[in-house]
Amino acid sequence: MAALDAVLDRVRAFVEAELVPLEGLLLAGDFDALLPAMDEKRGEARDLGLWNPHLPADHGGLGLPLDQFGRVSEALGRTPLGHYAVNCQAPDAGNMELLLAHADGRQRELFLNPLLRGDARSCFGMTEPEHAGSNPTVMSTTARLDGDAWVLDGHKWFTTAFDGAAFCVVMAVTDPDADNAYARASMLLVPTEAEGVEHVRKLPVMGDAGAGWFSHSEIRLDGARVPAENLLGPRGGGFLLAQERLGPGRIHHCMRWLGICERAFDLMCDRAATRELAPGRPLATRETVQTWIAESRAEIDAARLYVLDTARRIAEADSVVEGQKGARVQVSAIKFFVAGVLQRVLDRALQVHGGLGMLDDTPLAFWFRHERAARIYDGPDEVHKRVVAREELRARGHSIKR
Amino acid sequence: MAALDAVLDRVRAFVEAELVPLEGLLLAGDFDALLPAMDEKRGEARDLGLWNPHLPADHGGLGLPLDQFGRVSEALGRTPLGHYAVNCQAPDAGNMELLLAHADGRQRELFLNPLLRGDARSCFGMTEPEHAGSNPTVMSTTARLDGDAWVLDGHKWFTTAFDGAAFCVVMAVTDPDADNAYARASMLLVPTEAEGVEHVRKLPVMGDAGAGWFSHSEIRLDGARVPAENLLGPRGGGFLLAQERLGPGRIHHCMRWLGICERAFDLMCDRAATRELAPGRPLATRETVQTWIAESRAEIDAARLYVLDTARRIAEADSVVEGQKGARVQVSAIKFFVAGVLQRVLDRALQVHGGLGMLDDTPLAFWFRHERAARIYDGPDEVHKRVVAREELRARGHSIKR
Amino acid sequence: MAALDAVLDRVRAFVEAELVPLEGLLLAGDFDALLPAMDEKRGEARDLGLWNPHLPADHGGLGLPLDQFGRVSEALGRTPLGHYAVNCQAPDAGNMELLLAHADGRQRELFLNPLLRGDARSCFGMTEPEHAGSNPTVMSTTARLDGDAWVLDGHKWFTTAFDGAAFCVVMAVTDPDADNAYARASMLLVPTEAEGVEHVRKLPVMGDAGAGWFSHSEIRLDGARVPAENLLGPRGGGFLLAQERLGPGRIHHCMRWLGICERAFDLMCDRAATRELAPGRPLATRETVQTWIAESRAEIDAARLYVLDTARRIAEADSVVEGQKGARVQVSAIKFFVAGVLQRVLDRALQVHGGLGMLDDTPLAFWFRHERAARIYDGPDEVHKRVVAREELRARGHSIKR
Amino acid sequence: MAALDAVLDRVRAFVEAELVPLEGLLLAGDFDALLPAMDEKRGEARDLGLWNPHLPADHGGLGLPLDQFGRVSEALGRTPLGHYAVNCQAPDAGNMELLLAHADGRQRELFLNPLLRGDARSCFGMTEPEHAGSNPTVMSTTARLDGDAWVLDGHKWFTTAFDGAAFCVVMAVTDPDADNAYARASMLLVPTEAEGVEHVRKLPVMGDAGAGWFSHSEIRLDGARVPAENLLGPRGGGFLLAQERLGPGRIHHCMRWLGICERAFDLMCDRAATRELAPGRPLATRETVQTWIAESRAEIDAARLYVLDTARRIAEADSVVEGQKGARVQVSAIKFFVAGVLQRVLDRALQVHGGLGMLDDTPLAFWFRHERAARIYDGPDEVHKRVVAREELRARGHSIKR
Repeated sequence: MAALDAVLDRVRAFVEAELVPLEGLLLAGDFDALLPAMDEKRGEARDLGLWNPHLPADHGGLGLPLDQFGRVSEALGRTPLGHYAVNCQAPDAGNMELLLAHADGRQRELFLNPLLRGDARSCFGMTEPEHAGSNPTVMSTTARLDGDAWVLDGHKWFTTAFDGAAFCVVMAVTDPDADNAYARASMLLVPTEAEGVEHVRKLPVMGDAGAGWFSHSEIRLDGARVPAENLLGPRGGGFLLAQERLGPGRIHHCMRWLGICERAFDLMCDRAATRELAPGRPLATRETVQTWIAESRAEIDAARLYVLDTARRIAEADSVVEGQKGARVQVSAIKFFVAGVLQRVLDRALQVHGGLGMLDDTPLAFWFRHERAARIYDGPDEVHKRVVAREELRARGHSIKR
Repeated sequence: MAALDAVLDRVRAFVEAELVPLEGLLLAGDFDALLPAMDEKRGEARDLGLWNPHLPADHGGLGLPLDQFGRVSEALGRTPLGHYAVNCQAPDAGNMELLLAHADGRQRELFLNPLLRGDARSCFGMTEPEHAGSNPTVMSTTARLDGDAWVLDGHKWFTTAFDGAAFCVVMAVTDPDADNAYARASMLLVPTEAEGVEHVRKLPVMGDAGAGWFSHSEIRLDGARVPAENLLGPRGGGFLLAQERLGPGRIHHCMRWLGICERAFDLMCDRAATRELAPGRPLATRETVQTWIAESRAEIDAARLYVLDTARRIAEADSVVEGQKGARVQVSAIKFFVAGVLQRVLDRALQVHGGLGMLDDTPLAFWFRHERAARIYDGPDEVHKRVVAREELRARGHSIKR
Repeated sequence: MAALDAVLDRVRAFVEAELVPLEGLLLAGDFDALLPAMDEKRGEARDLGLWNPHLPADHGGLGLPLDQFGRVSEALGRTPLGHYAVNCQAPDAGNMELLLAHADGRQRELFLNPLLRGDARSCFGMTEPEHAGSNPTVMSTTARLDGDAWVLDGHKWFTTAFDGAAFCVVMAVTDPDADNAYARASMLLVPTEAEGVEHVRKLPVMGDAGAGWFSHSEIRLDGARVPAENLLGPRGGGFLLAQERLGPGRIHHCMRWLGICERAFDLMCDRAATRELAPGRPLATRETVQTWIAESRAEIDAARLYVLDTARRIAEADSVVEGQKGARVQVSAIKFFVAGVLQRVLDRALQVHGGLGMLDDTPLAFWFRHERAARIYDGPDEVHKRVVAREELRARGHSIKR
Repeated sequence: MAALDAVLDRVRAFVEAELVPLEGLLLAGDFDALLPAMDEKRGEARDLGLWNPHLPADHGGLGLPLDQFGRVSEALGRTPLGHYAVNCQAPDAGNMELLLAHADGRQRELFLNPLLRGDARSCFGMTEPEHAGSNPTVMSTTARLDGDAWVLDGHKWFTTAFDGAAFCVVMAVTDPDADNAYARASMLLVPTEAEGVEHVRKLPVMGDAGAGWFSHSEIRLDGARVPAENLLGPRGGGFLLAQERLGPGRIHHCMRWLGICERAFDLMCDRAATRELAPGRPLATRETVQTWIAESRAEIDAARLYVLDTARRIAEADSVVEGQKGARVQVSAIKFFVAGVLQRVLDRALQVHGGLGMLDDTPLAFWFRHERAARIYDGPDEVHKRVVAREELRARGHSIKR
């Protein structure tokens, strides 16, 4: 724990001193100034030994068990710039783990290593506008083998960080006739520069199209060709790989949300204590404000214990895959539980700030609008609740069909 | 009622056919295209006899009682462009009413008439960054009489629609030594071009600084001089005028929110019925979605009855001032009640849209972020709840101090 | 309206002076003292011209349109003794309306007239323990014609007021083979003294088995025989009659709940204003208590307007049956909306009372436990929400199956 | 942990096999049958080595650290009979801990030892009807030294388990003139048989006066005399002792509530899975029911982790007193957090049961009504929220007065 505490101290100091001052650029959408500034901070983070904190030591990471990494991720989550600064931002962090587990030598060289070094970024193409994301077996994008190449046709959106990415991990149907609906899709590594990859638009999310790693794109694949050896993992294994990738992704989101909650909580307390209703009578004297502070404290602390307990179960399993599998249902539970806490805490903190809360003078309004998606991405609340309920019923001997 | 129904039909058709198609420009922040397009629509609205619907017939308005106007305002509220298209947008609508009641001949000529014709816009400068808006007697902006001019010094923000406005109705302390704390401030008509009026910035609201009538500014008054005759109403009467102005403003917001709610409700139902989870099985088959639809229907209908009942009480009073006074507490009640309904309905409609709900492809995300302020502007929920509680206790013979 | 106001004054005075003082007997379960006392009050109510307020004047009632009766019912609802005191308690009020519409001459003489005079009470046997009440077409109780008698076999529960009732309106399957599932059941008038009618038990509801009109029974029909002419309405018409009976029943509950809400609200305000935290500092100075008062005020007022608007629609229809049909969906909406308001208001009022709120020294604890059923009886919230959602979708051209 | 698991297995088996079958007697208020049956079970519990599980081994208890005891308490809490069966029911458990820490030799002999053996019961007299329980320094009961006796005058209520208790630990003002308001009261051991101790009534709680250990009384002290040596702890130390006693009491309630939650959760799942809406279609197929199951699972698990984390902090402190002090604020947080979870879980479980949920055929209705007090006793939610908020503000350097 001593080691962890030291890492946390460094992360917190770095976040506070180096990243928080840059937030205004993100909030103002000034990416021309932000992107070079972040490049510099990424260099500093590497020098500080904070690079790739999510990875094992033998891949240059901090080698922390998942529950300890959770504390680091929370500390990074206090600013929207935290994870990118140390190279563990979504979707690259998930892609790195996927490639570490499934890439062959050539794929490591071409795709994984630049990510590990931070020389390139990547994206992940799964969701399609035509289909509800909650049912992953319904997918229209196809890839067919034509000689020594895969030819892809399809339509994706919410492809996070496509803008400026070197490649996209694309989920496509390769075996439409497989009996098992879960064995029809595969994952393919598609360079964004490949012919036939069309960038339709950066999606206007809450009034903000963003740029670079902070953006979400709509893309079309129109006969895009990639070498046959760009298949990642086994043919027909796309669904299993996606599962393997999304479980950890969800717990990573929960950890990050705790950081947002704590930052919002601090802002709420500080504003309450310093904004005066009348001389000598700050907002914090109002019982309603006190109620919001207390409820937020309790909800955040309960949420953290719940997330770390889940992480510990995964960390203590015989393997990560086993751990993820064993904790699958609890991961669904924390996903909707923590997303709910996040939304309530942000709402209260914003209300305490009054008009100021609506402005981009604090990150509250940014999180209020962008993290509304926390209840949607990686499976909406409703899907995760169904997962938990069915498991509880199943454990009591009751098998409930949809 | 026949007359009202005919007006409503015209308003609805105009909104649907002419304004909804322009929404994308607002959502994309493309004001260069939007502003001239809106000028054209304003001309059409005038030709259709929909101009100044909030005003008495002898001032060129529709001459509707307040509860009937409420229906019109709801119909306009279905798009963020509705009220501006017919010249009853905030803050101009409130300023027109204020000037109609209190402007002298010269002030009518110079300030009111251009507003009535739609040749100019105005703004209202009350809130100051240094003081909580919930306590209107604490204010730092001053105006002192220097010869035949008022000289203003101060700092205002959330001055809606300053950008491009011809003048600002500024609330300033003119009589700091008056015994009655409510008799220290006055209202002054300040041309935005006057020397000493500094536009600090358009406030970045939820990532969006806006433009023209859709913007909020921070301004400084640094020895700004205006003619002595620009005093609006009696000296020391600022607080009374503000009260007179804000009551109707609140009910106008409630009416508009009902329109937002109904539009969001329609979008929710349509998306639920057409978005398929699997072939032939739309989202609307999910019980959770049905629950959201039902709860929204009930809450919106109850809210509308509550708002219209309040409007009817005002309309049936012997005078508007009497009506507003008699309904003051109920106006506070609908302010927080309807704002709550608005937020819940928008949240549900957005969730039903999934990822699409986060995009500016519908107006839901726009309203979700910008109307978060509904629980803050014109008095936060907490202040209005206090007003209602104290009145209920007072009516039972219990006088509760703060 | 003058007439209504006079009636309301009389009802309020009667409730306050004559019924509230008897509440303690009900709360203590002292039915030996309560029942004779209530008989006396029922006599007084008749003398005051308050008898059968729900009925048309030509049947000895007050002849009020439904929305005006709503105000009377609210006034009666301020005490759990109100409706019984004037003979419009459930289930008798509904049974009277059913018999007025469908009883033949003999049935009127034998069954209806004693109810109208208050000489007898009745009950209604529909719900069965083996089947979810939310699906009325699934029912096991049968009645077969054997010569000139119906022979009934079955099992019912939540048969309100069976204890001491003269007869029960029993819903039973008479035509199990009818193609239309809604045409299989009929209604039968079954004297409680008939052989084969077995009273299993008074149900222990929230620790309280009650007595007389305030009780709910489980009964068995074991070859119970009643004359063939005890069929009420057409054979196979049971479902239609039940629908006709339950719609008004639901709006009657809503009206009564408003009375409970207002009483609880008064108790909450009075306790808040008089219970001191310290000398001179009553509970009502706490902002949280003020918030509860304000939210309750708004919710109750919105609920009342919603209920009365529904009643007005029914009253203004060409016939009651038409009115009920036209308002069916809105009745579902107010059922769950007002039940929700009721539960929240009672919860807040109880919390303001602290320990005292848990005691039977006020009626709050009684209502808290017994009116928890408001979200269950006459269709649980979940069923009514489904009704509303499907209608909204249908009105937009989307037909959603279960 | 092996030891703990074995204890838990025994406790669970004992609860399920021996206590659950007796619940019906409690729910029916049949104390004549229940009390002797419970005496028998208490003997069995002792034989099974489950007696006094909250106490250190050297006092005949299980000697478990507080977090491990938490698991035992949860297992006992699955039935309202659990804690009494093993002699760790409130208020005796708290009184034992108080006497263990502060009783002298004579007091141990006369008062503590019979409690440890289970030969006598006790009660705790603090709350007074005239004063809000949330302000413990305002108290009217007095004790004055008259020769070798204390003479007590006062009025107490919510004196749990007075009925049949051997003695009451009474909080009374002994030093009204002490400068420090927290040093005016003392604790006195008052035999219930002492002259001047008047039992006014068993309080009618939610329709139920109860009996024996399951009852709450109102009492008057009218010149009651007890020997001078019946002073417990130092004179003027009443407030400190009360603090010392109430902190652990609160966490004990939280642990017990988790047991209620899990039992309610099991009942909800089982009912959902077996109650059919139509043949082959159980309630559990409804998405709303699944949502309730999932939300309950998440809330209960988060609550448990929060409670056990608090218990662990106390257990790991250098002393219990230190531990309690260090965890005081977190104890306040879990008190309102878990009480909220409890109320929501019970409400959902009851709703899933429909009409059956209102009956005493399951313990749900019992808990629904009696555990409504969870948000009131040992400090209402509002007080605990204030404690948490002020500490959070204080930790950031902001001292907020009331």
